Amino acid sequence: MKASCSIRLAAALLLSAASAQTFQRLGTCPTLGCVFPPDQADFLAGQFFDIRLEVHAPVNGSEANGLMPDETFTFAIAKKGKKAVPATKYFDVKEPKLERWNFTWYEDLFARDAKKPSLVNVTAKAYRRVALYEAGEYTATLTYNNGTTTKANWLVRDLETVRKTKNIVLFIGDGMTTNMITAARLIGHKTINGKYQSKMQMDKFPVLGHQMTHSIDSFITDSANSATALYTGHKSTVNCLGVYADSSKDPFDDPKVETIAEMFHRLTGGAVGIVSTAFIADATPAALTAHTRDRSQYGAVIDSFLNGITNYTWTNWTGPDVLFGGGAEQFYSPALGGKTYQNKDWYAEFQKKGYNVHWNKTSLSTAKNTDKALGIFTVSNMAKWLDRNVYKVNLNQSLSPSGDKTAALDQPGLKDMTLKAIDILHKRSGNKGFFLMSEAASIDKMMHVLDYDRALGELLELDDTIKATVAKLKDLHVLKDTLVLVTADHGHGFDVMGSVDTTYLAAQNVDRKKRDAIGTYQNSGLSQYQNTGNLTYTDSNFPSNWSPRYTLFQGLMADPDRRENWSVRKDGPRLPATPTDDTKKEFVANPKDGEGGIKLDGTLPVGDDQGVHSLTDVPVFAMGPCQELFGGVYSSIDIFFGMAECLGLARGKKGY
Amino acid sequence: MKASCSIRLAAALLLSAASAQTFQRLGTCPTLGCVFPPDQADFLAGQFFDIRLEVHAPVNGSEANGLMPDETFTFAIAKKGKKAVPATKYFDVKEPKLERWNFTWYEDLFARDAKKPSLVNVTAKAYRRVALYEAGEYTATLTYNNGTTTKANWLVRDLETVRKTKNIVLFIGDGMTTNMITAARLIGHKTINGKYQSKMQMDKFPVLGHQMTHSIDSFITDSANSATALYTGHKSTVNCLGVYADSSKDPFDDPKVETIAEMFHRLTGGAVGIVSTAFIADATPAALTAHTRDRSQYGAVIDSFLNGITNYTWTNWTGPDVLFGGGAEQFYSPALGGKTYQNKDWYAEFQKKGYNVHWNKTSLSTAKNTDKALGIFTVSNMAKWLDRNVYKVNLNQSLSPSGDKTAALDQPGLKDMTLKAIDILHKRSGNKGFFLMSEAASIDKMMHVLDYDRALGELLELDDTIKATVAKLKDLHVLKDTLVLVTADHGHGFDVMGSVDTTYLAAQNVDRKKRDAIGTYQNSGLSQYQNTGNLTYTDSNFPSNWSPRYTLFQGLMADPDRRENWSVRKDGPRLPATPTDDTKKEFVANPKDGEGGIKLDGTLPVGDDQGVHSLTDVPVFAMGPCQELFGGVYSSIDIFFGMAECLGLARGKKGY
Repeated sequence: MKASCSIRLAAALLLSAASAQTFQRLGTCPTLGCVFPPDQADFLAGQFFDIRLEVHAPVNGSEANGLMPDETFTFAIAKKGKKAVPATKYFDVKEPKLERWNFTWYEDLFARDAKKPSLVNVTAKAYRRVALYEAGEYTATLTYNNGTTTKANWLVRDLETVRKTKNIVLFIGDGMTTNMITAARLIGHKTINGKYQSKMQMDKFPVLGHQMTHSIDSFITDSANSATALYTGHKSTVNCLGVYADSSKDPFDDPKVETIAEMFHRLTGGAVGIVSTAFIADATPAALTAHTRDRSQYGAVIDSFLNGITNYTWTNWTGPDVLFGGGAEQFYSPALGGKTYQNKDWYAEFQKKGYNVHWNKTSLSTAKNTDKALGIFTVSNMAKWLDRNVYKVNLNQSLSPSGDKTAALDQPGLKDMTLKAIDILHKRSGNKGFFLMSEAASIDKMMHVLDYDRALGELLELDDTIKATVAKLKDLHVLKDTLVLVTADHGHGFDVMGSVDTTYLAAQNVDRKKRDAIGTYQNSGLSQYQNTGNLTYTDSNFPSNWSPRYTLFQGLMADPDRRENWSVRKDGPRLPATPTDDTKKEFVANPKDGEGGIKLDGTLPVGDDQGVHSLTDVPVFAMGPCQELFGGVYSSIDIFFGMAECLGLARGKKGY
Repeated sequence: MKASCSIRLAAALLLSAASAQTFQRLGTCPTLGCVFPPDQADFLAGQFFDIRLEVHAPVNGSEANGLMPDETFTFAIAKKGKKAVPATKYFDVKEPKLERWNFTWYEDLFARDAKKPSLVNVTAKAYRRVALYEAGEYTATLTYNNGTTTKANWLVRDLETVRKTKNIVLFIGDGMTTNMITAARLIGHKTINGKYQSKMQMDKFPVLGHQMTHSIDSFITDSANSATALYTGHKSTVNCLGVYADSSKDPFDDPKVETIAEMFHRLTGGAVGIVSTAFIADATPAALTAHTRDRSQYGAVIDSFLNGITNYTWTNWTGPDVLFGGGAEQFYSPALGGKTYQNKDWYAEFQKKGYNVHWNKTSLSTAKNTDKALGIFTVSNMAKWLDRNVYKVNLNQSLSPSGDKTAALDQPGLKDMTLKAIDILHKRSGNKGFFLMSEAASIDKMMHVLDYDRALGELLELDDTIKATVAKLKDLHVLKDTLVLVTADHGHGFDVMGSVDTTYLAAQNVDRKKRDAIGTYQNSGLSQYQNTGNLTYTDSNFPSNWSPRYTLFQGLMADPDRRENWSVRKDGPRLPATPTDDTKKEFVANPKDGEGGIKLDGTLPVGDDQGVHSLTDVPVFAMGPCQELFGGVYSSIDIFFGMAECLGLARGKKGY
């Protein structure tokens, strides 16, 4: 997902934030002595991580104690039942140098309105690239301010180390909830007297689970830190990719944790594929290799895909075998308007390292399965399924990945990219196996802008992709050797409550009378998205009609101001709210959106122009080796541990 | 749940509804020849059902064809691969008598506004209490209007007949969704750095499923027809209990299907228990024994609990062993203001048949486990967990089950009722086993009135009840012999999107500024319902503070007009909207509700004073014998077939 305005605004106001709620001094550090990874962290045996220690000395505000930040704090590790050992000895590393900085934060909204920030002085140290190998419980103790302690209880999970799967395909429907799957099924599949005549591919999976998506320090997550949880087994803070958030100003010095892609590549030499319909530097793909507190460091994300982490000694990484998505602006030369890392042409950088580069569906289809492949198909996010398949004129809204400002008319869909990725990964990995992450990014992006039709179209495309993937794996004779997982990284508060008679709605002149167009319970009737239209597709199971008279009465629970007419946006993705002036501090319903609909006040802060994420547990569908690890209800981090166990990545001793 | 205003209004306007969407001629009959059970119906071998045939002759409107209703229609049954046989011969019954009636309906909202109903003349027949014993596919063919046919493809499922469980406990969280469970977990359980320190009992269940809740003829269900699907394996129409809806005026002549409770009792002689926090004639408990198109026939529901179906030959039923809930007004004498069936005192009727009657928690606790028990603890719905445990003064809002207009201060909770029910059922059933349905009814009822806190309190009480039930079954040494299922009958479009600084909200004077009190993403922070209060309970895992400064930013997606302040209602259940005048045709935000909050326009028709049900699949948690039948995604009817298979209720031939 793209960070909402409120995220970006808040990120600008403060670094990260512990004692109040709206804002926090530093989320995972409620006391004045901070240990990252913090209390309750779980580890895979042999997983690399950094340790960050901080001692805070609040100068003003409710926590001020008149103390200077401690320069002589100490840090020790104790395995359960054994004596505590200084960390330098435990990890056989030198004592890190002492660092100093300060930061400010607001204790609450009143402090923000009064512009009275609290100032905190900090002393800190970092231990880089360490690992715990022996399964069991540990206590890490920071001692500061003359004997005050912060203890972190860590657990290295005791997992089976026998590898049980050759491959993993992890599908992420960004922002996808059970509620959305239910709605997509209703418009994409036909029922007769309450019995569905076809099934979603997801519905055919043998094992169902729910994962809890919350952040470590806030109960609503964004896609960066939820992807971090899925890929590393460590929940983190909003906006963080593969790190815990420290309080320093540098977005690249936060304590890292090794990802499933990095460990799989380092330990097995297997092939890695990354596919997304988002701009490829976006959080969900980025979190596989990037390590930064600030997800908006897009250029650096591209560098991390190719070169891994270069500012610190880290894991062995030589680039993914497949990288497909949008976001050409982080690749083409600044001379063409690109916004690239170190002003380089990143197409050229990838080519130098042996990648073939593809800019359209035609080129993609002819890609050699033996070679590494970079496919970048548009500027920004890729076109939506609905615009590629139904309202095709809107493809003019996509710009060519070349940077030449022409339209990107020949874009692949998620299915094209995923099937090609599997061909390449299968060929290149040989006996080593592969790990592929394929993301339907715009379920989230379209829910953010309240474009329910496009969001559900993306969800149906994801399901169609999963169906084609299962068939492809079968054709390649590796279905039984491949764990296929389908999940999401968080939800949006979405549901369907009935139907809307759009003809009646448009014929009324008064908002309160327009509300009579809503049909609930028995008046919801049956879906008209099947049977009332004549649209057909090569792929099955999409609506035959996207604009029936009776549409879904659907929506989100938290919105900006907007006008709702519950009709498909034929001119491209929806823009529900527009700013009142150039400062873009306040948004109102877009006067050009939702013609004939009901004008509604939102509940979100008026600075928000789109919807937000929600709390709900999200579904997990599992099929293949280790599928039994993914049933029931668990934390998002258990997805990482399940995949790592299935790949046999735990290492009980050093030297791999 | 209680039928919303829109249901009642529509039900008054028309009987049930086929060709348009907002209204339908007859939902499960899109053509002019109707067969119930309709096309696509599934049956348990040996399950009793009625067959209703109708031929429609529309007099006016879009379907009018100038024909009189056919009096000479014929009906035949063919098992797959065999010749069609007249139904009278197939079932060895006499030809039913021809019936005639007419009904009117509106084709759409414009027709309603213009008061131009469509009139339909009908000829009909009914075959009563038949069954199909041989597994396999059947085709039922109605031939009418000189050779036009309506074919219904029926399937008798081929299920294992060996009984695998002694007992079933079926928990229904009415209206409960995954989103609500996630929210309840957040306020009832403590986290440290993103790791929950305790689990919901539901989260510990080994098998998770999703069931699709839609009605047969509309995609949004009510609790009557969803309960019918869960208990009979037949989806039906909104407002129907244990029947398919025909178009006749008589609410008691619709074609019935036998329920799990009826079959279990008839075939095994096992004990049956029915427990609910609703008035006990409400849809979810009622659907176990009642058979009517009109769920509001409360008096008749009470009669059906005790006496089964008496207006037609039906199944062998001698009353449940346990019946606990609210709704005293359907029991006490009309002389005291009771609204009872045939003006009888139904406490006396139950006593005559050997039931001990209990009116409060104290009496319940001393109930003999050897005797049948009727426990009715309040007029109307029972008090909510939050009012029984925290805001106890509100118990004054409940009236005594005696009918004496005093307050019902000594009410049991769902846990008290359920544990006592298990004691009685276990004792009385001996080796025959028992079936218990226990409903947390007010999750739904409190979501309807947007009282999120009370709804989540009810959900936590349900979870606490499940936890205590598992312990009780273990104590009785029958945990391994008992299939425990937890599910819901439908959802409400609910989610949590962040937190609300209620202090800041109240301090602002302008609605648009109040919206700044909303904290999303990292500003949602951590739950303050744990750790910031000093409330403690005998039961664990409820909030220590129900009114922290930072509350949940939660809500529904479709609402009446209301004022939101996201604060617990300390004076009793919320009343979000009030009528503009005595006609109660239009509702606006209740001026006494939501003090200091944001005034918001709803999206529901202005005649609605509460929220509505939603589409989402709901979760199923399973533990015990046959748990594996309940994983993955399936239809609500599969819950019935799974329970019936586990109890070994299929009968391949006549004579049980």
